[in-house]
Amino acid sequence: MITTPTLLLNEEICRENIRTMAFKARRNNITLRPHFKTHQSHEIGKWFREEGIEKITVSSLRMALYFAEDGWQDILVAFPVNILEIETINNLAEKIKLTLLVESVETTEFLVKNLKSGINFYIKVDLDYYRTGVSCEDIETISEILNSAKNSGLLTFCGFLGHAGQSYKSRSISEILNVHKDSIAMLLKLKDQYKSVYNDLRLSVGDTPTSSIADDFSMIDEIRPGNFVFYDLTQSIIGSCSVDQIAVAMACPVVAIHKKRNEIVIYGGSVHFSTDTIEDSQGNIIYGQVVKNTGDGWGKPVEGACLKKLSQEHGIIYMPDYLIDDYKTGDIIKVLPVHSCTTANLMKEYLTTEGRKISRL
Amino acid sequence: MITTPTLLLNEEICRENIRTMAFKARRNNITLRPHFKTHQSHEIGKWFREEGIEKITVSSLRMALYFAEDGWQDILVAFPVNILEIETINNLAEKIKLTLLVESVETTEFLVKNLKSGINFYIKVDLDYYRTGVSCEDIETISEILNSAKNSGLLTFCGFLGHAGQSYKSRSISEILNVHKDSIAMLLKLKDQYKSVYNDLRLSVGDTPTSSIADDFSMIDEIRPGNFVFYDLTQSIIGSCSVDQIAVAMACPVVAIHKKRNEIVIYGGSVHFSTDTIEDSQGNIIYGQVVKNTGDGWGKPVEGACLKKLSQEHGIIYMPDYLIDDYKTGDIIKVLPVHSCTTANLMKEYLTTEGRKISRL
Repeated sequence: MITTPTLLLNEEICRENIRTMAFKARRNNITLRPHFKTHQSHEIGKWFREEGIEKITVSSLRMALYFAEDGWQDILVAFPVNILEIETINNLAEKIKLTLLVESVETTEFLVKNLKSGINFYIKVDLDYYRTGVSCEDIETISEILNSAKNSGLLTFCGFLGHAGQSYKSRSISEILNVHKDSIAMLLKLKDQYKSVYNDLRLSVGDTPTSSIADDFSMIDEIRPGNFVFYDLTQSIIGSCSVDQIAVAMACPVVAIHKKRNEIVIYGGSVHFSTDTIEDSQGNIIYGQVVKNTGDGWGKPVEGACLKKLSQEHGIIYMPDYLIDDYKTGDIIKVLPVHSCTTANLMKEYLTTEGRKISRL
Repeated sequence: MITTPTLLLNEEICRENIRTMAFKARRNNITLRPHFKTHQSHEIGKWFREEGIEKITVSSLRMALYFAEDGWQDILVAFPVNILEIETINNLAEKIKLTLLVESVETTEFLVKNLKSGINFYIKVDLDYYRTGVSCEDIETISEILNSAKNSGLLTFCGFLGHAGQSYKSRSISEILNVHKDSIAMLLKLKDQYKSVYNDLRLSVGDTPTSSIADDFSMIDEIRPGNFVFYDLTQSIIGSCSVDQIAVAMACPVVAIHKKRNEIVIYGGSVHFSTDTIEDSQGNIIYGQVVKNTGDGWGKPVEGACLKKLSQEHGIIYMPDYLIDDYKTGDIIKVLPVHSCTTANLMKEYLTTEGRKISRL
């Protein structure tokens, strides 16, 4: 019985999301190297393995260690190399096929001096997201990195990698496809420049919006979506998925009802949901979408009801007049999260709609 | 040696914050019932005990259990009663002096029927913050709750409690003092109405801004600030504390530098800091304030440098031209958090500036 805020997981939807993406990658003859930061769970990792996935992406060495422990042998850490963690890098590189992201000459030189086992590296390039990465125009730096890496037999260049995070600002399929097209164009230009020297050079790109929506992957080698395993309200508003594909929902006890203000207070706040927000189709800034409570699972969105405010432990739900009398203190309200990655990170555990607990890092 | 994002705690500042608030409460002859949700640590709890604190506030039954385990015998759960957790309530009420918040007749009736041990309760009233609580004008509901509670020998009414969370919107001492004055006026009106029947009726109010700034507590019985144990950037911008009173800072490795954009990329993102933001004195929306790195601790703010953007694991620091050459990959940058409660909740552990680890719930 649910008595406190709980993150529900619909295993069937989740497995279907995994299957769909794995099928798409196979059909396009590209590698799906899913980002595991969203679920961070050994068990959910196994569901990927059952679909033939062997290579994964993580965002920290800690996560790499966690999945290496569970037998994953080919792990990309999609975060600029943190040279302070060289000891962990050397430990991991001894045990698994470790791929790192390099974006500066300084870091490359550090690795040349300090690596004890072989690693692969991608050069992280900036696909106009302006967060990290060498500019695609900065051939001087790219060539310097490659030249520096040649000074060590332990650094194997595998290609160029980018993350076009601006896809999250899309609000239509055509906008998502434009991001995809532009990213590929930038990466292809680099490939043309270096392919004569590096024949096996690979291109890695693709977040959840572009990987979910695009159909043409003919020019690239690898996609690394992560969020699609659960999807969330943001992805459905972007257009990456339908609401029915969202595999997680928060279940929260009703602790107070303020009928005059059309408000229901739930036990479930920013320490459970995170403070991520999104603008819904009516222009409201919301923290989650209320859905119908169908026993152990959940159903369609409750029209007009949303999670409109959060403090640390409290959530305030707006409930329209014609529905508010259906709720009472002690009920459970279910809410689709705005951002499943950060909600799952806070909740630390899943309860499947069949009643089984699944742990995570 | 720090190699990954780490939450630093300056024990000396923290103990001084505790001492100052404890002294203020003693001088005003009121009870300090500090909110422990900010630190959630047995050890830091002991520092309060050393200052004579015996009563505490928490925001969940889970937290109440954690502190009861460490010997705390008088705990207020400052959250509307979640009737689904009646079993935990009964377990706790058997062991300690448990105080709960009631704000509806339905919940009172539920407690009357289901309590097995005695508890105290405050009626939670709304001090114009419009989150939870009975309206102070709604004498009908208040009297109904009191009448309902009389049907059980296990429910002891101890008074009225409010949280004027709008104090966090203050940006000056006079605004904070106005919130304090208005809250007390609302509570006093209620006391006048009920004191002839309930002679021992107590008034509990006071968050970190009002408790830090106000000097007149003559009309109330108890204050419950929590954040003051660490303070943070928000409190310093509100005016509750000086920057020197902030007892926590994040230490984050530099992983990339983009000099052309005046940007330093740190390992430290929304899963470490939380996504709370605040507007600084220049009108910038920031996620943290960079401070000088002084070996194991930190110093004054670095003028013009701020944490301007976060993604899950990355933080982007804006660094002015004249300073950016002072930083290199592998350095540690220290940042004051916007909201210490949520940062500490994500980090799960403290490292004192003397190098000692302190655990938390």
